[in-house]
Amino acid sequence: MRALGRHVLAEFYDCPFEVLNDLKQVERNMVQAALDAGAEVREFVFHKFSPQGVSGVVVISESHLAIHTWPELGYASVDVFTCGDRVDPWDACKILKESFQAGSVEAQEIARGMNVPLHKVAVNF
Amino acid sequence: MRALGRHVLAEFYDCPFEVLNDLKQVERNMVQAALDAGAEVREFVFHKFSPQGVSGVVVISESHLAIHTWPELGYASVDVFTCGDRVDPWDACKILKESFQAGSVEAQEIARGMNVPLHKVAVNF
Repeated sequence: MRALGRHVLAEFYDCPFEVLNDLKQVERNMVQAALDAGAEVREFVFHKFSPQGVSGVVVISESHLAIHTWPELGYASVDVFTCGDRVDPWDACKILKESFQAGSVEAQEIARGMNVPLHKVAVNF
Repeated sequence: MRALGRHVLAEFYDCPFEVLNDLKQVERNMVQAALDAGAEVREFVFHKFSPQGVSGVVVISESHLAIHTWPELGYASVDVFTCGDRVDPWDACKILKESFQAGSVEAQEIARGMNVPLHKVAVNF
């Protein structure tokens, strides 16, 4: 068995309120991290909540990046999900830690699609 | 400490090729599952890949649903991430298992935002 995808789930703590609450900056940070990690950006959509908070997703050829921010808590949940061997999700995660100026980050990697039969995967790759 | 969000990561196996490869059907299934689970849909974006496969995300007020399909493997990775107590991510997951006609599903729930200081969360809720 091999995994089809690598999914990094990251918790960003102690980020500046104004960074997490700025729709355009959040969008720019996420798209730029995808590009800088070598991903191919297909679509993206971001939404600003009232009174605060931003949610958004970047669909990449290799899967997606997602973020939800709680500016009042200095917290953002960040997902970087990649398939294939070309893009390392941890690269994007490290770039995002910098661009969101996170004081601390907790992250884990979850393997996705582990139980697709090997002979089928072999045909696909 | 309490979690800010609940994130269900599900692996859908043995789904029909034609269901996983139909952009409009995938989009409809995802949006409908969000609505039927009681979520408020804000934005959605879906993308069809060549020669096959669909990726897409539904941004909801409560966070997001995401899917990536490998029709040739009968496989889809499905994420349902919800914050707050109003929507149960497992409800959407069960609805999606039916609408994608998955032969089997493996799923796990990951708590998100566990280490936001409690006094800050108390203000937010």
